[in-house]
Amino acid sequence: MAPSQASKYLTGDGNAIGEFLDKFDVRVLWSGDHLFPGIVETIELLRSKGKRTVFVTNNSTKSRAEYLKKFESKGIPGSVDDVFGSAYSAAIYISRILALPAPRNKVFVLGEAGIETELRSEGVAFVGGTDPAFRRDITEADFAGLADGSLLDPDVGVVLAGLDFHVNYLKLATAYQYIARGAQFLATNTDSTLPMNHSFFPGAGSVLVPLTNMTKQQPLALGKPSQAMMDAVEGKFHLDRARTCMIGDRLDTDIRFGIEGKLGGTLAVLTGVSKKADWEADGAVAVPAYYVDKLSDLAQGGL
Amino acid sequence: MAPSQASKYLTGDGNAIGEFLDKFDVRVLWSGDHLFPGIVETIELLRSKGKRTVFVTNNSTKSRAEYLKKFESKGIPGSVDDVFGSAYSAAIYISRILALPAPRNKVFVLGEAGIETELRSEGVAFVGGTDPAFRRDITEADFAGLADGSLLDPDVGVVLAGLDFHVNYLKLATAYQYIARGAQFLATNTDSTLPMNHSFFPGAGSVLVPLTNMTKQQPLALGKPSQAMMDAVEGKFHLDRARTCMIGDRLDTDIRFGIEGKLGGTLAVLTGVSKKADWEADGAVAVPAYYVDKLSDLAQGGL
Repeated sequence: MAPSQASKYLTGDGNAIGEFLDKFDVRVLWSGDHLFPGIVETIELLRSKGKRTVFVTNNSTKSRAEYLKKFESKGIPGSVDDVFGSAYSAAIYISRILALPAPRNKVFVLGEAGIETELRSEGVAFVGGTDPAFRRDITEADFAGLADGSLLDPDVGVVLAGLDFHVNYLKLATAYQYIARGAQFLATNTDSTLPMNHSFFPGAGSVLVPLTNMTKQQPLALGKPSQAMMDAVEGKFHLDRARTCMIGDRLDTDIRFGIEGKLGGTLAVLTGVSKKADWEADGAVAVPAYYVDKLSDLAQGGL
Repeated sequence: MAPSQASKYLTGDGNAIGEFLDKFDVRVLWSGDHLFPGIVETIELLRSKGKRTVFVTNNSTKSRAEYLKKFESKGIPGSVDDVFGSAYSAAIYISRILALPAPRNKVFVLGEAGIETELRSEGVAFVGGTDPAFRRDITEADFAGLADGSLLDPDVGVVLAGLDFHVNYLKLATAYQYIARGAQFLATNTDSTLPMNHSFFPGAGSVLVPLTNMTKQQPLALGKPSQAMMDAVEGKFHLDRARTCMIGDRLDTDIRFGIEGKLGGTLAVLTGVSKKADWEADGAVAVPAYYVDKLSDLAQGGL
């Protein structure tokens, strides 16, 4: 799965950086919820060289519009089309690929507002999510009504799970009932951890793993490294994979996503989750074609 | 692991029931949170024949005293010593076997009041559990204080996880930080589901599996089928394993617990989770030595 050649180190090597920038002249996909140091000048550089950058994120808690606001506040102008999130990927999958016939085509959401916004943008009906009716303790009446189905919406045909900072027993019990009764089990992504404040917190994959543990079913994940996400990106942007590079800091999602998607290149940035030792270890999940210490090394070498 | 001989069917076979009752003349361990039909008369029969019954449960949400109250309300008199729960088993393990030196010997509890009661009964200090300070949404300040450790209790050396109807993101994030910083990871039990109202709800194993998913560590489980529970039962009651029988309705916990504990016998009751087809299937997790349609078949045959 991972290429066997060594990764090329670009930091400080102006010629190599120049070749790298020439090779990927169409699009650069990049990732990193905690904006890489030097991202602003690097994106400016890439755009000045005529390259289109698309931000690809597994974080489903924010909608594309919310990401755009965040970027603009950091000095990165753009449009909603410069952002591609796992919530949007999931919404597209549900509405255009799954395309369940009515009436059993509603989605039960285990997740935050970002998922709801993207489902709405695709015209997909949903229940759960941020509905206050689910943000409470489970009661005896819930146990009875979930067990006999009287509290369930008969039109739910899909459970879509993602990162939910308000996960609770009632939501998990409800999602389980839908899956056990035949709803399709989808996930925006299955990252086990959420890197924040230089530490780790429960990621979408850990929020939804109780459902996997109960049903013995793995969800279909629509975020990186799932190729459903790459297909959705390609379908939207009509990109030339050979001239597209994936930039990211996680081997198991970003770099693997680029390799399995047969992109022309992958660039690992060492300011994030994965370290050089991770891909040099036996059985590494993915080996990047290129790597830099920090993203701004590209801007420095390429000036 | 499972014996290769066929299971003996006792229902309606007076002679076989008589032999069964003679064989296990010391103690009978039984399980089943939803009292088996006929349990009252069966326990009366067993006691009238001089057998001691011990109720063994993986449910950690109730203390032994609370179970006793429940039994008394159903017409089954007894004493606290007739009940052995996974919360009590865990408390004994922590206080007497783990016996961590002070000061780093506090327990962070992911679970309900039953665990707290049993920890208190063994004089084990704890935080978390039913503390209202943890029954709320996570905040930005929590993310910062958990990441830098300022919100963590430096004396916590153990995370004990069990069934928690009030599980939330804050508790999971806190428990993760303790384990990541070296706390031992224990579980009252790891049942994936909780059978209730003739359906299934998230069990202790599904409440705590996010921590396994994040840390890649399996907890040491102190409930059935863990032999830590059997050792604790034996230590308390000085039972003769060869003359003890385990009665229960789950192959993967009850029957396996009895077989791996080298008890003289195991009796499956078909009114619960597992069915005959489950142990006749290839790769069955455990095969009971005996089985009955319902527990009261014993009382009928043995009269």
